[in-house]
Amino acid sequence: MARARISIIGTGLIGTSIGLGLAARKDRQYDIIGIDRNRDHTREAKKLGAIDREASSIEEAVEGAGLVILSVPARSARRIFEEAGKYFADGAIITDTCSTKADILMWAAEFLPETVHFVGGHPMAGRTQSGPSAAVVDLFKDATWAIAPSPRADEQAVATVRGLVESLGAVPMYIDPAEHDTYAAAVSHLPILISVGLFRMVRDSKGWEDASLLAGPAFRDLTRLASGDPAMSRDIMATNKEAVLHWLDRFQDELSTIRDAVEAGGQPVTDLFTSTGFDRDNFILNPPVRRRPDGPEAPSSQDAIGRLFVGGLYDKMKEMTQRTGKPRPIGDDPGLRKKLGALDDE
Amino acid sequence: MARARISIIGTGLIGTSIGLGLAARKDRQYDIIGIDRNRDHTREAKKLGAIDREASSIEEAVEGAGLVILSVPARSARRIFEEAGKYFADGAIITDTCSTKADILMWAAEFLPETVHFVGGHPMAGRTQSGPSAAVVDLFKDATWAIAPSPRADEQAVATVRGLVESLGAVPMYIDPAEHDTYAAAVSHLPILISVGLFRMVRDSKGWEDASLLAGPAFRDLTRLASGDPAMSRDIMATNKEAVLHWLDRFQDELSTIRDAVEAGGQPVTDLFTSTGFDRDNFILNPPVRRRPDGPEAPSSQDAIGRLFVGGLYDKMKEMTQRTGKPRPIGDDPGLRKKLGALDDE
Repeated sequence: MARARISIIGTGLIGTSIGLGLAARKDRQYDIIGIDRNRDHTREAKKLGAIDREASSIEEAVEGAGLVILSVPARSARRIFEEAGKYFADGAIITDTCSTKADILMWAAEFLPETVHFVGGHPMAGRTQSGPSAAVVDLFKDATWAIAPSPRADEQAVATVRGLVESLGAVPMYIDPAEHDTYAAAVSHLPILISVGLFRMVRDSKGWEDASLLAGPAFRDLTRLASGDPAMSRDIMATNKEAVLHWLDRFQDELSTIRDAVEAGGQPVTDLFTSTGFDRDNFILNPPVRRRPDGPEAPSSQDAIGRLFVGGLYDKMKEMTQRTGKPRPIGDDPGLRKKLGALDDE
Repeated sequence: MARARISIIGTGLIGTSIGLGLAARKDRQYDIIGIDRNRDHTREAKKLGAIDREASSIEEAVEGAGLVILSVPARSARRIFEEAGKYFADGAIITDTCSTKADILMWAAEFLPETVHFVGGHPMAGRTQSGPSAAVVDLFKDATWAIAPSPRADEQAVATVRGLVESLGAVPMYIDPAEHDTYAAAVSHLPILISVGLFRMVRDSKGWEDASLLAGPAFRDLTRLASGDPAMSRDIMATNKEAVLHWLDRFQDELSTIRDAVEAGGQPVTDLFTSTGFDRDNFILNPPVRRRPDGPEAPSSQDAIGRLFVGGLYDKMKEMTQRTGKPRPIGDDPGLRKKLGALDDE
């Protein structure tokens, strides 16, 4: 019996959490292969059951894989495209989880062979702890997952990545890579610099010993991102420098405005806290509605999830998709099986 | 049988959580009276069992109370001192949970009668949600609780407040009020302005609609303090303006340094993320040791907890303090009973 193969390159928090979600489907018809530059991370992912087998090289990991998921810092993705591009199977679908998208799409166009389909991705999820031991199967539940397909990716590849995203419980959001990077800089990348700056400032002050004793949940929460993976943060700043600096300047302006208000005191300060609190409560209580996208690039949910799980998963699909309607049986389409890297067992 | 009375003025998150902790001791020998400017908050606290009875006025709340806990914004504490000071019982112990201490101590000296004992306090605990419905009995577990006694407060009053703090599971930390305010400005008050500034900046930008869809846990965590009680934030800035502005300026300098590093790129950026991550991980994994203070102003734990629970709580005290040694029986000391506001039932 042929088995599709999914490869996860980079088994940190995100890669391992994806693996846990994929592995959790007991009647799945695919094997999950994993590799990480840090061998301990690969072993940990294997121990947790997030991958079935450890690959001994990037080449081995991508050869014959129908779906490759890159969960590495942005500039490592570039190196993998450049050095291992030729080993990807014809028709393979490649996605990533990097925090920036424009450079990744550019590198995919530059280095990947024309026979593969690259669909960029970015799950808006995370935890304080990093590494595979922090992975949880429901990390992506209800999280927005940005999807930015390359122009060369065909409809089926986009559908498969969307199926992956939805099968992990996340909500797909199609977005232009440059727009993604601009907005992610504001809500995700600038906050890293804020956390680092606040922690450094207090840590380097003479009062650190006493201040740290008084530090409660406010300080811990606001400096949480300073404990993120340094390589990821470094690559974010390198691949999204312009947008991050733009928002950092705006943030400094905002702080100066607030400084003036606090110094002057009185009603404007009250108004600032009251109106901001009102707006934020509203944002939390009534989060923006993420419409499940449709149109030619975005096939219906049951298609997408169905296509991800090739070969005899009709019942599972039915169970998964019965909320939204009758799923379409996939059958034994040889083209689709080829796309998903179905190979005879070795 | 005489009952000691404890009054909680302000039954928001903190006041109600204190009440829940005090009420949880089933064999307690005190009644808990509560009042809040917001009648719904008083009723909710009563419904939750955090207070036994609702007072109809501040005067009624403080009259005959042996221990009064003020859980209100800083400038409301001033008004209460000024307007209701004369109603406090002779020998009453008064404490607060305000975020700043120097002004509170000054107002206590200015407005409270010499017959009462003021011991300032500040629990370093909180949640995103405010109000009594967010209260939890273990809110203060392992939290640092700053204690700044007024010069007029006697040893027994300090011991009682320390007993209150420890009985709620928190760790007392004696600190000079000015020092408290300086350090709290860095780790607690500046973070409010950062949260407000980050939320306002993104919320007021043209890209808000798309950016909010991409906003994940990083943005939610870093803007959490923008949802705090506006009156509390306003009073913090009014009563600790100089220290907050000092740290805000230093934070802006820190951000400018980081901006230069990100713009230049290369090894310094990597070093920044690596060393800050290392230091923060160390802070989280090996938090600073809070030594339980001793010396004349800081009697031993079993004394303090014991004194709080007057009259026949020997067994309870024994159970609570057996870790640290044999508790001292309190007996029926009339002076102590007077201090704790023990009155014949009305």
